[in-house]
Amino acid sequence: MTQSLKGIGASPGIAVARTFFLATERFVPARAAVADEKQEVARFREAVAVSRNEVEAIRVAAEERFGADKAEIFEGHLMLLEDPDLIDAIEEKITDEAINAEFALHEVAQSFIELLQSMEDELLRGRAVDIEDISSRMMSHLRGVPHMDLANLTEECVIVARDLTPSDTAQLNLAVVRGFITEVGSRTSHSAIMARSLEIPAIVGVGAAIYDVPENTLLAMDANEGLILINPTTEELEAYQAKKQQDDQRRIELAKLKDQLTLSKDGKQVELAANIGKLEDIQRAIDNGAEGIGLFRTEFLYMGRSSLPTEEEQFTSYKYALEKMSPKPVVIRTLDIGGDKELPYMDLPKESNPFLGQRALRLCLDRQDLFRTQLRALLRASRYGNLKIMFPMIAVLEELLEAKRLLEEEKQKLIAEGVQLADHIEVGMMIEVPAAAVSADLFAPEVDFFSIGTNDLIQYTMAADRMNETVAYLYQPWHPSLLRLIRLVIQAAEKEGKWVGMCGEMAGDATAIPLLLGLGLHEFSMSAGSILPSRELIGQLNQAQWSDYADQALRMHSTQEITQFVEQLRNGVSS
Amino acid sequence: MTQSLKGIGASPGIAVARTFFLATERFVPARAAVADEKQEVARFREAVAVSRNEVEAIRVAAEERFGADKAEIFEGHLMLLEDPDLIDAIEEKITDEAINAEFALHEVAQSFIELLQSMEDELLRGRAVDIEDISSRMMSHLRGVPHMDLANLTEECVIVARDLTPSDTAQLNLAVVRGFITEVGSRTSHSAIMARSLEIPAIVGVGAAIYDVPENTLLAMDANEGLILINPTTEELEAYQAKKQQDDQRRIELAKLKDQLTLSKDGKQVELAANIGKLEDIQRAIDNGAEGIGLFRTEFLYMGRSSLPTEEEQFTSYKYALEKMSPKPVVIRTLDIGGDKELPYMDLPKESNPFLGQRALRLCLDRQDLFRTQLRALLRASRYGNLKIMFPMIAVLEELLEAKRLLEEEKQKLIAEGVQLADHIEVGMMIEVPAAAVSADLFAPEVDFFSIGTNDLIQYTMAADRMNETVAYLYQPWHPSLLRLIRLVIQAAEKEGKWVGMCGEMAGDATAIPLLLGLGLHEFSMSAGSILPSRELIGQLNQAQWSDYADQALRMHSTQEITQFVEQLRNGVSS
Repeated sequence: MTQSLKGIGASPGIAVARTFFLATERFVPARAAVADEKQEVARFREAVAVSRNEVEAIRVAAEERFGADKAEIFEGHLMLLEDPDLIDAIEEKITDEAINAEFALHEVAQSFIELLQSMEDELLRGRAVDIEDISSRMMSHLRGVPHMDLANLTEECVIVARDLTPSDTAQLNLAVVRGFITEVGSRTSHSAIMARSLEIPAIVGVGAAIYDVPENTLLAMDANEGLILINPTTEELEAYQAKKQQDDQRRIELAKLKDQLTLSKDGKQVELAANIGKLEDIQRAIDNGAEGIGLFRTEFLYMGRSSLPTEEEQFTSYKYALEKMSPKPVVIRTLDIGGDKELPYMDLPKESNPFLGQRALRLCLDRQDLFRTQLRALLRASRYGNLKIMFPMIAVLEELLEAKRLLEEEKQKLIAEGVQLADHIEVGMMIEVPAAAVSADLFAPEVDFFSIGTNDLIQYTMAADRMNETVAYLYQPWHPSLLRLIRLVIQAAEKEGKWVGMCGEMAGDATAIPLLLGLGLHEFSMSAGSILPSRELIGQLNQAQWSDYADQALRMHSTQEITQFVEQLRNGVSS
Repeated sequence: MTQSLKGIGASPGIAVARTFFLATERFVPARAAVADEKQEVARFREAVAVSRNEVEAIRVAAEERFGADKAEIFEGHLMLLEDPDLIDAIEEKITDEAINAEFALHEVAQSFIELLQSMEDELLRGRAVDIEDISSRMMSHLRGVPHMDLANLTEECVIVARDLTPSDTAQLNLAVVRGFITEVGSRTSHSAIMARSLEIPAIVGVGAAIYDVPENTLLAMDANEGLILINPTTEELEAYQAKKQQDDQRRIELAKLKDQLTLSKDGKQVELAANIGKLEDIQRAIDNGAEGIGLFRTEFLYMGRSSLPTEEEQFTSYKYALEKMSPKPVVIRTLDIGGDKELPYMDLPKESNPFLGQRALRLCLDRQDLFRTQLRALLRASRYGNLKIMFPMIAVLEELLEAKRLLEEEKQKLIAEGVQLADHIEVGMMIEVPAAAVSADLFAPEVDFFSIGTNDLIQYTMAADRMNETVAYLYQPWHPSLLRLIRLVIQAAEKEGKWVGMCGEMAGDATAIPLLLGLGLHEFSMSAGSILPSRELIGQLNQAQWSDYADQALRMHSTQEITQFVEQLRNGVSS
């Protein structure tokens, strides 16, 4: 029987190719005395210089390939290669102890890595990977062993590694790399996110068993299912090839829906939009037939840098997005920092329960300087497309009114300065705090639209941290409580003639979509890759019928009952 | 003009007396070489032994006065006095460095204190106070200076201190101590809690200005307002005496309500119960006319010890409470650990958002061994009174059903073992997760009662950590969203003929009570001291009228609007 392995499908697709193992054991040098410390330091400096040149080249290539924000990782690497804390410490160790550079590098880098790994701060822990990355590069040069650059691969392969570093993923030669498999990692680890953005099949978290597979072994991987076949039989290979063809065929079919409206079987029109987190995502959204951007996360403008972005920098990004999507709408969410997202340069206080802390608009209302800068940039960009401004994390009406007041103030200032603005800018809010859902009727007269942020709404409604595995069983998007809150919000909005979108993971979920359509949701915003399958699905659904089904679902007792109900009905529909 | 100071009223009451400053500067010994280290170690051991005897005596006295659980602090002190990490380290320092015991003690104790104070874990940080306490005691004996024992005070006074240690508060001579004032602290600091349990006026967090008051100065303190008058004039003194008399008079008036039913003006009966957190609170509940215990927190059985309490220990406590209250009901809540409450010996994983983590029943369903032990103890105690079992932190129906299944299993086992149980034990759940409130109708057929835990329900509904000051403005008990959820819960329960209580702070709040009465709440559980004033208030309210007012309040837009509305109506009523 063919041996198989199971992992987490982190980026969908099917691939058949031979393994290429990326050496991950780190070289551990021995301590050796050197006679001439000065010469040893010089040798080390040479290795640093060569590494810097290499990283700079990778940075330039990554910027072309992935855009400026992904390339910033390598700016971080360059900074590390100049960091006196690290570099001087190694040189001092060479000099003081009269030892070989390899050993000094290893010792100092390890102590930094261990220190960083012990940190509570996730961002700081993440820096450990960067130090590992550059120190292994320097080590290669010291040893005269060429640093394995994945760009040099010339044969078709599936890469197997413990995990992929940022430089590894940035350099993958997509002409030959068919997919990758890692021992560790989850759907949200760096390598998984990169794989999805590269649209390359990836299975992560396979475990140590992956090392039992010999080098250059033929694998068939189905990353849709997280399944790996080792040395598949001819029949299995054929089956995989057929699956791959089916996959490809389906993509071609779906692509035909790209420029179509989203209509249910009985003719109800809804809008499918994309969630984006950086400017490069816009092209993907367009390629996948998005009818707008339903959630433009502005955090990327604030992250991976050492100070707040200026009004001008923000304006340029917003203008770019609006122009690129015009005349389609772009819902830009004001800064949602705090919670699990930190900005080192803002020195936010450490909170015991950051998800219940001073996040998003709460922080913006407290730090009006930075909020006003963003509002001005948004207002100035408004005339370049169809802008809608959205405020996150509102719990009580006072917060919304205060945010609107600040927006109006900046608007009047700009008008007084003679700046041209769009005639009308829709202003809306996210519904992600239970209080806002329960009192949606109080908010509805004050907004142009709601967008339900299910990721947070679920975690607050269930009082279960969505990052905490011990309570993961409570993260139930289809729970009656959630559906009831969603209905409350939609009813409150309709009463005032306002539209309701959804921009959480749930909006792109095939089990949720029929119910949401039935509940009367107007806009579904999801990751670009889900848009075409969702358009296809909605085309098969009868909205009026699903409105009745949704009523039934709301009276059910559990998530299980509801999902079974939906699955049965959907299967009935497609059979 | 008389000088005054303002602090936090931590325990109500009025007192007039002269200051007695508790010396709080710590003695800082100089380093001195000793010729005979052995003799120095012997001298140190003598100080340790004398300290142990003293602490043992305090422990015995505290147990008599406050009960076993308060006395456990001193068992902790005794353990520290035997702790090799601490004691051996001091002896080693004396021997190794040939120095005086005072200096060695100071250095070692300080390093422990600093280490503990830097800890994230609040319990560990709390241990720093204990080490300070015992090391200052040892230091007194080393120096031959008598350790100040507050039990020796003979003159009427108001004690002034930086803060009071556990041994200080345990030894207060209530015959002469009229109140106390501290520089630091909050309503929840150890000394504040002790003051309330001793029913002695206390003002905490006054700041360093308190040290400007000379020793033996006459003070008039109004701990209801957190106000301190320094050297009050004769008129002021008279005013304070009058206030005190009024206070006393009111207490006498209220005491008349002690054995009465709680009836609204129009004859609707409700139940006023007490929240308790330890066995000694029961007497206070009875003295304050509680019609039952609406929330018996069982955490005290698990805290301040080094291993889980046995079934027998728990049984004894539950039996005691049930017998003491019989035939009045005692609602015992199963273990609510996790969140902000930790048990060092359970080694619970560190969570990023503990309030959204594996708390309470979630933990109990995962750690069934400890849950079953508690359920058995409860069941065995059931025949000694009117027991109602309550499960906390339920979000979804499956959790309730699983908890009920385990309870039923243990019940059947006990019956098979021939243990006699009560004929009927009511089983209920707390409503503190928004999901449970929104879907209360799904839970109602499966319980005998609900008890709304507002402290948590508010923080989850608002997505605002109730311990986090930056989002304190969102902790709004009277927000329309909250009131709507409360109404949903009461309506769902009434449909099934079940009763609804409330055991959060809100239940004893004079602004909330009229609305809650209007919404149809059946049981109000609060701190014992609030029961009689609440009974008086309810007697002045027309339930039918407040039902209409509550309907109006539910349609209002903000907390401010609602509280103003209630205050105006209440003032109208009492005027």
